[in-house]
Amino acid sequence: MKPARDVLGRLDSTDVTIDDAFWNPRLEANREVVLEYQYEQLEESGALENFRVAADDRDGDFQGMRFADSDAYKWLEATSYTYENDPDPALEERMDEVIDLIAAAQEPDGYLNTYFTIEEPGARWTNLGEMHELYCAGHLFEAAVAHHRATGSDRLLSVALDFADHVDETFGPDARRGYPGHEEIETGLVRLYRVTGETRYLDLAQYFLDERGQEPSVFERELATFEADDRAGNPKWYRYLFEDKAGEYDGSYAQDHTPIREQETVEGHAVRATYLYMGMADVAMETDDESLYETLETLWQNMTRKRMYVTGGIGSSHDGERFTDDYDLPNDTAYAETCAAVGSVFWNERMQRITREARFADELERALYNGFLAGVSLDGTEFFYVNPLESDGDHHRKGWFTCACCPPNVARLLASLDEYVYTVTQDERELFVNLYLGSTGTIRPDGTEVTVTQQTDYPWDGAVSLEVSTPEPVTFDLHLRVPEWCRNLTLTVDGEDRSVDPDAGYVTVGRSWEDGDAVSVEFEMDVECLRAHPNVTNDTGRVALQRGPVVFCLEETDNRAPLSNVVVDEESIEATESDVLEGVTVLEGSGRYTPPDVWENRLYQREEGITSEPVDVTAIPYYAWDNREPGEMLVWLRTD
Amino acid sequence: MKPARDVLGRLDSTDVTIDDAFWNPRLEANREVVLEYQYEQLEESGALENFRVAADDRDGDFQGMRFADSDAYKWLEATSYTYENDPDPALEERMDEVIDLIAAAQEPDGYLNTYFTIEEPGARWTNLGEMHELYCAGHLFEAAVAHHRATGSDRLLSVALDFADHVDETFGPDARRGYPGHEEIETGLVRLYRVTGETRYLDLAQYFLDERGQEPSVFERELATFEADDRAGNPKWYRYLFEDKAGEYDGSYAQDHTPIREQETVEGHAVRATYLYMGMADVAMETDDESLYETLETLWQNMTRKRMYVTGGIGSSHDGERFTDDYDLPNDTAYAETCAAVGSVFWNERMQRITREARFADELERALYNGFLAGVSLDGTEFFYVNPLESDGDHHRKGWFTCACCPPNVARLLASLDEYVYTVTQDERELFVNLYLGSTGTIRPDGTEVTVTQQTDYPWDGAVSLEVSTPEPVTFDLHLRVPEWCRNLTLTVDGEDRSVDPDAGYVTVGRSWEDGDAVSVEFEMDVECLRAHPNVTNDTGRVALQRGPVVFCLEETDNRAPLSNVVVDEESIEATESDVLEGVTVLEGSGRYTPPDVWENRLYQREEGITSEPVDVTAIPYYAWDNREPGEMLVWLRTD
Repeated sequence: MKPARDVLGRLDSTDVTIDDAFWNPRLEANREVVLEYQYEQLEESGALENFRVAADDRDGDFQGMRFADSDAYKWLEATSYTYENDPDPALEERMDEVIDLIAAAQEPDGYLNTYFTIEEPGARWTNLGEMHELYCAGHLFEAAVAHHRATGSDRLLSVALDFADHVDETFGPDARRGYPGHEEIETGLVRLYRVTGETRYLDLAQYFLDERGQEPSVFERELATFEADDRAGNPKWYRYLFEDKAGEYDGSYAQDHTPIREQETVEGHAVRATYLYMGMADVAMETDDESLYETLETLWQNMTRKRMYVTGGIGSSHDGERFTDDYDLPNDTAYAETCAAVGSVFWNERMQRITREARFADELERALYNGFLAGVSLDGTEFFYVNPLESDGDHHRKGWFTCACCPPNVARLLASLDEYVYTVTQDERELFVNLYLGSTGTIRPDGTEVTVTQQTDYPWDGAVSLEVSTPEPVTFDLHLRVPEWCRNLTLTVDGEDRSVDPDAGYVTVGRSWEDGDAVSVEFEMDVECLRAHPNVTNDTGRVALQRGPVVFCLEETDNRAPLSNVVVDEESIEATESDVLEGVTVLEGSGRYTPPDVWENRLYQREEGITSEPVDVTAIPYYAWDNREPGEMLVWLRTD
Repeated sequence: MKPARDVLGRLDSTDVTIDDAFWNPRLEANREVVLEYQYEQLEESGALENFRVAADDRDGDFQGMRFADSDAYKWLEATSYTYENDPDPALEERMDEVIDLIAAAQEPDGYLNTYFTIEEPGARWTNLGEMHELYCAGHLFEAAVAHHRATGSDRLLSVALDFADHVDETFGPDARRGYPGHEEIETGLVRLYRVTGETRYLDLAQYFLDERGQEPSVFERELATFEADDRAGNPKWYRYLFEDKAGEYDGSYAQDHTPIREQETVEGHAVRATYLYMGMADVAMETDDESLYETLETLWQNMTRKRMYVTGGIGSSHDGERFTDDYDLPNDTAYAETCAAVGSVFWNERMQRITREARFADELERALYNGFLAGVSLDGTEFFYVNPLESDGDHHRKGWFTCACCPPNVARLLASLDEYVYTVTQDERELFVNLYLGSTGTIRPDGTEVTVTQQTDYPWDGAVSLEVSTPEPVTFDLHLRVPEWCRNLTLTVDGEDRSVDPDAGYVTVGRSWEDGDAVSVEFEMDVECLRAHPNVTNDTGRVALQRGPVVFCLEETDNRAPLSNVVVDEESIEATESDVLEGVTVLEGSGRYTPPDVWENRLYQREEGITSEPVDVTAIPYYAWDNREPGEMLVWLRTD
């Protein structure tokens, strides 16, 4: 990998504006419906009331999950990104109200966690493995940096810094040993470091990373001395998460099974895991740490080559919401939490910035258009926590969850989508286009303000045009990602075709640009019938349909059910425009359907007895499923 | 179903002699190697020593699993069947020695269980759910009846009757409530009833059946009062077996979730389940109980149509060794315990006798030639407990197990195989041929001793000839089972062809027979490519090869591995004789093999990129796998 000092920067909200037929409705819903709805839920669920009770010492119990504070922080982060793009005074006022609540709940020494302040003030930091104090701190830090950047205000940042200082005094080589059960604070601390330049925060993030997995395990000791030390939390639950069947300590749930630099497989709770890797990448960027890079590369290979759904979903098991074994990717019982897809986007974004390699943006794109985007309904008000690749018709999005991690995570990624489109070198003389969507991005090579305007009907059409607007001729390299799914492309620079290797990763157009110069690229967008590795036995005899970055699925409302009785003819599948689901491209084709009575009272029968009839098949984008009549859904279609 | 009074009898060891090219080596190994070896293991494992320690009150701890007594009983039962066929005085002497040990360990009140006598004499019957007192009693009763029938001796029978009387005094409507955690005593009691005519034993069996699943559950109460009542056993283990994840009582592990007549699906530990159904069938036969029949039919439908491997293996989950959900039949993690296949044979044998329907003998045959027979090595000295349908090469038979239920269960079924060949009406004027194997069977219609001699090279060849030997012309019906796997057959009676419906179940030849009359039938034995129900997602895009009753598999030693990279051409598969594995018929054909490097560093790829090369494919009978070099094994072969 490249050394850290060359890490790419990203164009943030001030430099990018999205205006895109596909994304505008998502972003509008996020801005106009989701944030408002989630604010109401914060009130309704008691998450805001917790801050009031903690501040006033007024009567009242803590409400909700013990990490409910983080719901408010994530909402603040999402709202800050939105405000940065579209500064609405009403939004700022509401943020200030919430920040006031938070600030009032902070204890004099900087500590901030409403569960402990309300319920167990004496038990701070006694249960790092199972409780979420450091996790909530991390989300506070991310929110504080986002708010500061969006508003210029220090109101939330000062709260965050006070807490960060408190955490820094509490933990470290010269203080008590510890690290978070659920990672997140590592990234939060690096963000504080970037804003303040205070190296203590970076050092603390590094400490948390390197202490994890060392002998003796902090969590193992917590578990062993649970009752004796009068810890907060639930020993039964702790044991469930951190003990194997033989009752032995197993830290893999929280990536505590071995020192992080020795980890070679992605293990445990998938959100924790990706947040850990994101934190490792953040620290690596700042410290130019080769060993961290190498570990991340190994982990990424394991995840993307052996433990990831074709949708980019990760964490295949409900039990522990976790990664399991290589190639263990059941479709109907897939967990594939929306938050884990978000974590994968976060991690891949950092990997691209470190390495400048397109493969990371490819995986970002896969997770974004599929495993992540399925997490939210088209109208933005309902959410999947769990994203199976096959459903019997009983799986539906809900408005909010007792464990409300996913909805605000969806909100903060959508609200900051503009930051995922482009990355640049420090001198802004190299611009990487990572996502294709209608947008303008501004860079300043040699101090000249240059706008690149992107127009496309992606993800339905592979044609993308980019036009440069500059007051004077300027030299910079435009690096266009050639998506992994693309077999052929045509690149035209100022009307002149150029030949391009489709395996190029990025194709580079380097030149002196003049105002109005245009590049157009057409990524051939065929229907692809994907097969899974032979070891993924759940996908044997099946194909997944993909076109562009979008994975497709059958829904019962368009097809004959049971869907498992349909065998598709791969050759017949063609893409066509439609007016369903806000006008998605659908795939249509034919196949054979075996009526259920052919199998009545039979479990096994000779092939000759299995009669079938012709059937039409219609597939819709996976992300858009469960937005119409309830029914079966299937991604991996039978071809046998 | 037919009323119980018409239940078929079976021709037992005194009336049937097996002389068959396929089975002789199995039966010889069982007689000459297995019983001797298992006797040594009884000594080595401490199972016999337990009886000595219990009898003498000598110093010593109980050794082995708490139901180790049953290993000795099952060995005695198997040895009795063997002795009945081939009365060897040395065998009788050894049985007598073991019986002396058992008799000496019996307590004055008839109670007999060495674990409790040695370790917890005061805790009898305090833990019916998890301990195995009634289970061991049932095996004692079966052994006692077998020994009595084989030798005429009452030595073991009187021990059994004393214990049965004790159990009868202890449990029942007018005594304490209870029923066994592991069924088996029900069948044992019916056997005692048949030998003695004592209705108390039948009534007690019926009581145990009908009390199961009633509110309040005996096991639930035991669990709730475990410590307070100072019970024997392990509450943690009890909880693991009988509580769901939420910590609520769930009796399904031991079929205690609902009254047995209301059970509609096969649930829980598969050996327990089949032993329950066997006991229900036994009681139903004696009491002509319509409701029990109907329940058994419902359960059988559920098992054979939704919860059974193509090998006849049942109980798909390691966790609880149990049935799971409909169509949940994973191949690599299949549990499919050998004992459960034995239980299925026992149950199906009874169902055929109740109903006279061939479908039960079909399923008996399936389990016998596949799921059961795989349980023992060709030389008879090593055993599978677990019978997966796919192996990575690490699964091998072992000589004995700490939990040694399977080896003696294999021995007692093989030793009594002669009893599974024919069933007859009470008047012996109708003879049902259920299994095709070289044998002579004697019936006495109207008092005339008639011998039917069967000759065949089954299961490799579908030609079967039967010749009648009779001192005078005699009228009886010969019912020949038309195996479910057979599509076409030719029936010749005294040189004259008769047309037969292959779906007949049994084809009947009714006539006046003269000495030397012959019937020959040829069951066309094609290679069948079986598909599984579309809901069995583990088998999607795969076929299982079957020829006659034998299911085949690929082994690594004959094929290119990884076997999951092989796609077979179904049309190419042909049967051929071989000299491997004692001369089994093998299946040979061709297919395509994808070298592993095609998938290097890829989890998903478009179909066009998946190159392959031609490959030869050789399949051997599933029962014979793991008798040569260790390696991968696969039953369900890819066809996509």
